[in-house]
Amino acid sequence: MTEYAAPLRDMHFILRELAGLDAVTALPGCEEATPDVVEAILDEAGKFAAGVLAPINRAGDLQGCRLEADGRVTTPEGWKEAWQQYVEAGWIGLSLPVDYGGQGLPKLVSTPVWEMWFSTNMAFTMLPQLNVSQAEALRIAASDTLKQTWLPKVVSGEWGSTMNLTEPQAGSDLAATRARAEPAADGTYRVFGQKIFISWGEHELTENIVHLVLARLPDAPAGVKGLSLFLVPKFLLDADGRPGAKNDVRCISIEHKLGIHGSPTCTMSYGDAGGAVGWLVGEPNRGLETMFIMMNEARFGVGVQGAGLGERAYQMALAYARERVQGRDAITGEAGKPILCHPDVKRMLLSLRARVMAMRALLYTAAAWFDTAHHHPDATVAGKAQRYVDLLMPVAKGWCTEVGQQACWDAIQVFGGMGFVEETGIAQFARDSRIITIYEGTTGIQANDLVGRKILREGGETLRELIAELRATITALRAEPGFGPIVDGLAENVGALSEATHWLLAAGKERHAEALAAAVPFLHLLGTVCGSWQMARLALAARRCLAAGEGDAAYHASLVELACFWMATFAPHAAAHLRTVQSAGAPLAAFDDTAFY
Amino acid sequence: MTEYAAPLRDMHFILRELAGLDAVTALPGCEEATPDVVEAILDEAGKFAAGVLAPINRAGDLQGCRLEADGRVTTPEGWKEAWQQYVEAGWIGLSLPVDYGGQGLPKLVSTPVWEMWFSTNMAFTMLPQLNVSQAEALRIAASDTLKQTWLPKVVSGEWGSTMNLTEPQAGSDLAATRARAEPAADGTYRVFGQKIFISWGEHELTENIVHLVLARLPDAPAGVKGLSLFLVPKFLLDADGRPGAKNDVRCISIEHKLGIHGSPTCTMSYGDAGGAVGWLVGEPNRGLETMFIMMNEARFGVGVQGAGLGERAYQMALAYARERVQGRDAITGEAGKPILCHPDVKRMLLSLRARVMAMRALLYTAAAWFDTAHHHPDATVAGKAQRYVDLLMPVAKGWCTEVGQQACWDAIQVFGGMGFVEETGIAQFARDSRIITIYEGTTGIQANDLVGRKILREGGETLRELIAELRATITALRAEPGFGPIVDGLAENVGALSEATHWLLAAGKERHAEALAAAVPFLHLLGTVCGSWQMARLALAARRCLAAGEGDAAYHASLVELACFWMATFAPHAAAHLRTVQSAGAPLAAFDDTAFY
Repeated sequence: MTEYAAPLRDMHFILRELAGLDAVTALPGCEEATPDVVEAILDEAGKFAAGVLAPINRAGDLQGCRLEADGRVTTPEGWKEAWQQYVEAGWIGLSLPVDYGGQGLPKLVSTPVWEMWFSTNMAFTMLPQLNVSQAEALRIAASDTLKQTWLPKVVSGEWGSTMNLTEPQAGSDLAATRARAEPAADGTYRVFGQKIFISWGEHELTENIVHLVLARLPDAPAGVKGLSLFLVPKFLLDADGRPGAKNDVRCISIEHKLGIHGSPTCTMSYGDAGGAVGWLVGEPNRGLETMFIMMNEARFGVGVQGAGLGERAYQMALAYARERVQGRDAITGEAGKPILCHPDVKRMLLSLRARVMAMRALLYTAAAWFDTAHHHPDATVAGKAQRYVDLLMPVAKGWCTEVGQQACWDAIQVFGGMGFVEETGIAQFARDSRIITIYEGTTGIQANDLVGRKILREGGETLRELIAELRATITALRAEPGFGPIVDGLAENVGALSEATHWLLAAGKERHAEALAAAVPFLHLLGTVCGSWQMARLALAARRCLAAGEGDAAYHASLVELACFWMATFAPHAAAHLRTVQSAGAPLAAFDDTAFY
Repeated sequence: MTEYAAPLRDMHFILRELAGLDAVTALPGCEEATPDVVEAILDEAGKFAAGVLAPINRAGDLQGCRLEADGRVTTPEGWKEAWQQYVEAGWIGLSLPVDYGGQGLPKLVSTPVWEMWFSTNMAFTMLPQLNVSQAEALRIAASDTLKQTWLPKVVSGEWGSTMNLTEPQAGSDLAATRARAEPAADGTYRVFGQKIFISWGEHELTENIVHLVLARLPDAPAGVKGLSLFLVPKFLLDADGRPGAKNDVRCISIEHKLGIHGSPTCTMSYGDAGGAVGWLVGEPNRGLETMFIMMNEARFGVGVQGAGLGERAYQMALAYARERVQGRDAITGEAGKPILCHPDVKRMLLSLRARVMAMRALLYTAAAWFDTAHHHPDATVAGKAQRYVDLLMPVAKGWCTEVGQQACWDAIQVFGGMGFVEETGIAQFARDSRIITIYEGTTGIQANDLVGRKILREGGETLRELIAELRATITALRAEPGFGPIVDGLAENVGALSEATHWLLAAGKERHAEALAAAVPFLHLLGTVCGSWQMARLALAARRCLAAGEGDAAYHASLVELACFWMATFAPHAAAHLRTVQSAGAPLAAFDDTAFY
């Protein structure tokens, strides 16, 4: 297995040149993130990822987790020790509020750090990711008492976190939720029901587990507006606030999955013995809103998984292509050269690298918008950043996961037959990656969110704002000599996006089914165009560095070429997606249930 | 797990209307394949696939094969019995020569049968596929004595077959082969060396195993022109022609793989104890030519695996979408309906079905060309068919495997979270399918074959012939009212292919590296265009049936809509591939080893 090397050069370039790290760290509340601090954090994270998380990733896959007869769930070898180190280093609180023990750093700084965790051990990292999401939800929605009691241990990682939404009959459709909660005399609740697909629902890495559970109060209205959120711990706390009596919650099975074997996916049963003690978080019947705080946070993180897994797949494939000797150089006829000399192998590797860079640039840029939205003193600037975050969150999740998992799957091909052999390790990354387009809302759900809530609801206003910004990038590109292929690629993309937007706004009014059928193709289109935009910005930034004689000229030149490669390889598919948006709906409408043979 | 139902309606439609079954069965030597016989064979094969092969497929995945301490390789439960039934039913000889115990049926008839085997149990079917390929190689290249001794048992399936090419340092590059053979005084040879990735290299389903091994004679020239082919049995034969003494060949390890666990992938060691007894097959130093007979046969079969796996993935996803209730109908608001009512789920299912039909139509049409090439009395007709077979074999293999494995991977998405759980069964098909773009020559190898040997070598002559035929289809489409989207889709595709062909012929002369970098994108382009061509022919045939009032009108109408869906969804990517062909080579050339960061 190839060792992981944090792609610090790429990360710093994108942070600085594309995402505007300087501007973000100048925001009020973000001043702690000085250049030195950011560099030190990324260095340390890179070492931790390579030295602690990467080495236990394969054991996680091979050993997986096990549900013992007594209800305990055991984790793979070395995971408990790694978790201790992770907690002691304080990584969970990186971007969480200082008030609760976090370090309060901008999302822009924490995003590359999470990328490294995902690159090296996604199954492991799902646990701290849950802590962070839950901390956000509790911070915003929970009472002060609940916050004081639970939040510091969630932020530190002494206790674990889960989110409990799904039930057998309620997957994407939370309106069908049946779990219920009854008020008890002491102001607490008794929670009953079964939840499935609960990541890290049971384990012994932490001394307690804080479950957030969606359930219905006795008088709740039907549908999603009758869901309340409850905090249900694995162990109730004793008088000293330490884990004491076992609560009425247990793991009754764990799934046998395609990937992320190191992360136990649990079926959780609440209230088998009289009711699990829980506390209401936020207002009754508004649990889904709170859960969505947790979920939106998690969705961005899942997008980052796409980039992180893609980066690792690229690193592994590149290392193999550099060491494997096979065939002759097609041009010189020379033997004994590694397969990286073959044009098609180069093509495969560049197609991995280009996708990773496009995803990374989009995600870091979005993280900067997020920080700007939260911290910028000028309401106009903050508002615009927030609109971009809202519009592009389903793209960050939906598109980056689609692209990232495809990159991992494609990377197997570089290894030839060795890629199909599990010992090589690349297959694990492909298997692990297959979940990312599914959990935290499938690509279809993201696309519906994008088209329905983020575009049609506001008549496409923010999207038009984005298109205007894309056009400004085209103008900037035209000023650069030799950028013809990049200009053409982006201009064609923006034309396609503009046309698709007109179609969508028209269809949204009259042809609802067609608009829905077009949602995923539209998501792919918008994602591709955003990717092209970021690659164009990458080329512009690289050219600026070249012109200024800053840094490593060969590196910057390679980024310009990488953007050209993107425009030749990925950008052209935007026009194809436009065609699908416009014309797949009509034949699709002809297919009722009986027409599928 | 969804039960398999042979897609007989689709198969018969394509056999009859697109591949020209009547014309094939009218060929001299093919007269046995009367309509009744073909129908009976397909019916029986469908029953055997569903009743015998499908039920043991999951055990194959879960149990896999095991190498015991004594060197035996055990297979999953029920596989030995299934093999007995398979042999007794005479399935292996279906399209093999009558002289050696086969039934001599056309390839067009055996192709749908193999598709069913692959749909239901690909790991199992790799064994009989090896028998068929080996039988072809022996029939053409082996001496009469060898044929009489070995061929009947290979054709019947009493003995198993393998092909031994790969060595650790010689994967795609057979020139690096090191295995060697020394002549013995009695006219036999002693074979020495290690071979890896040998499918079904050791097992006990058959009482003997016939290995064909590439090795070098003492005086052999370097490179691929110094490879000879040897027949090396697991057991030498006694005086009665029955398996007797063990030969000096053994399995020393089996691979732990991503998929096809039921098929043992062996490292074979020859000659550890003085030399494995072998017989030269064909002439010295011309072993690769013979191996290519076996390989070309196998390559087409691997293309059929793409269609077969895709069909099964479609069937499973459709069944799940029909039974899983989730959410509300987006249009009517009705609850309690299966997810098939959601436009995006429909879109996913149609994208599976459209791809399967395009692959199947291309493969069956290619099988008919194959039969025509071999049996047509008119040399002009036969010659044209042979040229098409030669040109499109790398497309049948390279494109159908890429499309088929992608379809299986995509199908997981229809299941949401359940798709990631192994019990659902769809994940196995995705894992199994990942090998098909790799073995029997990777997609890169297929693309080089296509561009180098099949197009550039003859100056694009056959490709131009094919383009003319595509234009004739466009003319036929124009005569049909309402076929605008199909005409436009195919016309745009043919334009792209034509432009790419000009580019390739020009680049092939001067810019060899760029032509090689463009090979895989060109393969995708040509495959997509062939898919569009077949979908257009499907629509034409369906329209003809509709006009004539033949058969089921709703079915035929759905095929026309399916063709429109293809044109909206897959055809537009051909133009994107054209752009990649034309413009990815330049930036790619800028990347030497040092430019990959």
